[in-house]
Amino acid sequence: MTATNTQTAALEDLLAFQHETEALAGISGRLEWDQETMMPRGAAEQRGEEMAALSSILHARRTDPRIGEWLAATDGAELSQVDAAKLRHIRRTYDRTMKVPARLAAELARVTSISQGKWAEARAKDDFAAFAPVLAEVVRLRQEEGTALADGGDRYDALVDDYEPDMTAAQLEAMFGEMRPRLRALREKVLEKPAPEGLTGEFDEDKQMALAVKLARTFGYDLTRGRLDKSVHPFSSGSGSDVRITTRTSATDPFNCLYSTIHEVGHACYEQGINPDYALTPLGGGVSMGVHESQSRIYENQLGRSRAFTHWLYGQMTDTFGDLGLDGPDAFYAAVNRVRKDFIRTESDELQYNLHIMLRFDLERALISGDLAAADLESAWNERFEKDFGYAVPRASLGCLQDVHWSVGLFGYFPTYSLGNVYAGCLHATMRDALPSLDSDLAQGDTAAATAWLRENVQQHGGLYRPAEVITRACGAAPTAGPLLDYIEAKFSELYDL
Amino acid sequence: MTATNTQTAALEDLLAFQHETEALAGISGRLEWDQETMMPRGAAEQRGEEMAALSSILHARRTDPRIGEWLAATDGAELSQVDAAKLRHIRRTYDRTMKVPARLAAELARVTSISQGKWAEARAKDDFAAFAPVLAEVVRLRQEEGTALADGGDRYDALVDDYEPDMTAAQLEAMFGEMRPRLRALREKVLEKPAPEGLTGEFDEDKQMALAVKLARTFGYDLTRGRLDKSVHPFSSGSGSDVRITTRTSATDPFNCLYSTIHEVGHACYEQGINPDYALTPLGGGVSMGVHESQSRIYENQLGRSRAFTHWLYGQMTDTFGDLGLDGPDAFYAAVNRVRKDFIRTESDELQYNLHIMLRFDLERALISGDLAAADLESAWNERFEKDFGYAVPRASLGCLQDVHWSVGLFGYFPTYSLGNVYAGCLHATMRDALPSLDSDLAQGDTAAATAWLRENVQQHGGLYRPAEVITRACGAAPTAGPLLDYIEAKFSELYDL
Repeated sequence: MTATNTQTAALEDLLAFQHETEALAGISGRLEWDQETMMPRGAAEQRGEEMAALSSILHARRTDPRIGEWLAATDGAELSQVDAAKLRHIRRTYDRTMKVPARLAAELARVTSISQGKWAEARAKDDFAAFAPVLAEVVRLRQEEGTALADGGDRYDALVDDYEPDMTAAQLEAMFGEMRPRLRALREKVLEKPAPEGLTGEFDEDKQMALAVKLARTFGYDLTRGRLDKSVHPFSSGSGSDVRITTRTSATDPFNCLYSTIHEVGHACYEQGINPDYALTPLGGGVSMGVHESQSRIYENQLGRSRAFTHWLYGQMTDTFGDLGLDGPDAFYAAVNRVRKDFIRTESDELQYNLHIMLRFDLERALISGDLAAADLESAWNERFEKDFGYAVPRASLGCLQDVHWSVGLFGYFPTYSLGNVYAGCLHATMRDALPSLDSDLAQGDTAAATAWLRENVQQHGGLYRPAEVITRACGAAPTAGPLLDYIEAKFSELYDL
Repeated sequence: MTATNTQTAALEDLLAFQHETEALAGISGRLEWDQETMMPRGAAEQRGEEMAALSSILHARRTDPRIGEWLAATDGAELSQVDAAKLRHIRRTYDRTMKVPARLAAELARVTSISQGKWAEARAKDDFAAFAPVLAEVVRLRQEEGTALADGGDRYDALVDDYEPDMTAAQLEAMFGEMRPRLRALREKVLEKPAPEGLTGEFDEDKQMALAVKLARTFGYDLTRGRLDKSVHPFSSGSGSDVRITTRTSATDPFNCLYSTIHEVGHACYEQGINPDYALTPLGGGVSMGVHESQSRIYENQLGRSRAFTHWLYGQMTDTFGDLGLDGPDAFYAAVNRVRKDFIRTESDELQYNLHIMLRFDLERALISGDLAAADLESAWNERFEKDFGYAVPRASLGCLQDVHWSVGLFGYFPTYSLGNVYAGCLHATMRDALPSLDSDLAQGDTAAATAWLRENVQQHGGLYRPAEVITRACGAAPTAGPLLDYIEAKFSELYDL
């Protein structure tokens, strides 16, 4: 059985409408990039008006009743795999958008735009109490949204599903349950050892940027379809043939610039690597936050922080900056992977990073379920941090105010970072089997085989498969935390001589 | 009599709808800026799709039948001057847009996007014949559009009206008739004199840009609501609190960078100087191309190329680049204002510039009336050029292929450049009377009084008045070519010792 004429016409109309929506959404992303990189500071208010106008157009398109009619008209049609996947995405977005009352969507947009500012002020003053009331408001609205989306199911699951389709809190809990004891045990042993030396001194920031560009190229980022600029927080933006990344520089910490660049290059290469036939369709972007993060993490960590690659990078660094004051490439490798007692998630290492996420996962579930009141977040955070990390949080900016996420309503987002690490662990293990010369390539600064493997097995598919399916197809087995944990244990045991 | 409730409601709905349309149009401008400055070259096709989606949204809004209903509902309402002006603009745009069949608008967009590429190729090869067929197509479509817009009137007038409301070919012809003999007579005398020395040598391009930024600030450009970048062709883009400009650099010709900057600063200061209450309304942009050009020209020429200001600039140049190889500030003034036998409009001087425009005005009228076939343009151009300038055009890139305008369908646009010069002449004469210390200010690099006068008398009004009315209000008399011609004759007679 094939599609009838009516079905074919409905499909064509729906995809043409979607094409225009995707193009408009691309514009929205371009403006966000501009806002963080190029926009004059005096233009913020006007830009707010422009973005509001575009959001209103996009919202109207996403709730256009014709989408429901077209979808109904295609019901039962025999579709190609690609068209079926497109319709799956369109249906999913339409269903979710229609479930959220317009009043709630508008209220969320309004409150989160205010609360981000309140968060920034509160963080600057280490004053959680100043942030708590608006946080309570954001939580209340997201609870309401979660309930609307959940159809009687768990509302936190409904929020997670926004970032990682098919994922549930129960699955995440099982995953973290496997990870927690092994990571804590390893952390304890590592922290008993003397800490390796880090970098000292100052590093010219223009030279850092020049080296960042070189690293981006080294990892296969196509600068004819992208560009690298500076911003306060590094990010990757866009898809298809216009995928831009940013990084930042600090005179005393060149690793921040360089590894932020490699991380964003991972995100960007995913977007650049998607089958160009999917451009401006629902398949033309990364399939989920978890899979996206798997790409940024594997570029940054399993490749970028490997002994082989850091040996090559050591040569680049000394060529660029002269003597680094470290005792050769192995000391450099140790400096790159140094495990320290610290507070900040984004500055954490591969070993401790997931412990930061587990803390957030538990606290945000409690906020969304209502078990934890927003006003009590700071004390709950501090208590839990001390339990997990063994020392006290001295001030809110090093504790519960360190991340922007909750202020903008991102609940259910944090676990996708760890999921990305887990996916990266699986992909890395499979890739190592497939590429026996990986380390000798990396030691030459040659990532071509690795990035080609990722493009072939993950990136090209865009939104064609479901998130877990992407990893399962690439690895031949469903994703589990085992390979990541094995990798981390092996790496840090060797590095710290355990 | 005041507005009824129904009238008030219709007015509010119309202005709210228009506000969103203006915001979306602002986004379109931002993307065009990005395309010329930041966009990776591989993104062109995708950007085309994005722009097409946004254009289609904008076209749908501009032809939304509710506009007609709202306008009808406000008929007879007693309105404030500001609201009346807003409705005048909305009605004008709506009437014009509705007169052009959708099929024709789409065909024009399609053909002009192709023809611009053909023009660039033809210009690179000096091959007019390769461009003639697509030019004929563009002319045919614009003829058809002009007829649709003209309501039985003259179709060239209808096209001019797009750029300069209320202006007609007859008025332009009378203006050029007054200008031509005086400019030709002066030109002949000047060209008999020995040409002053120009700049020689090379000028660091980063230093040119740093000086360009300083000049932009000197002329009052607010960099907190704008920015200066490089592009192939200099332009100003945006309005309100986000008005960005570009310039270009050539190692051997720093005047190109610096005077392009001042020119674009004039455009940008107009947009930045508009009453902020008009932001995102039809009054929030410059009122016409002619008035816009009056601002860029008066900044660039009457102020920027004055003896007083060039004396200050000479100091800046020698501070920046060292010895210029010229015999002091008066020789520098002569170099800035040097009149040469040349072919290119954009590189022309104040004296000859309008002769270039007159040639284009007559030829494009003949193309639009049908008296001149597109295929015959090159020979007509060359014949006319030799008659006006006294020497032959050696190749098409120095002749009829030098400007992009006709390739993108801009017929009726060229005369607004001369109109801008004429308006600038009127404003300059009035401003000189009002500001007796202008030259001593300019000699210190101080443009504050001049730019404040322009802001007060021209810029702040945005679209509140009709174009000629803006000049009439500022100068106390309707605009004529007299003041510009008097100024040019006085300046070049003195400079060339006639």
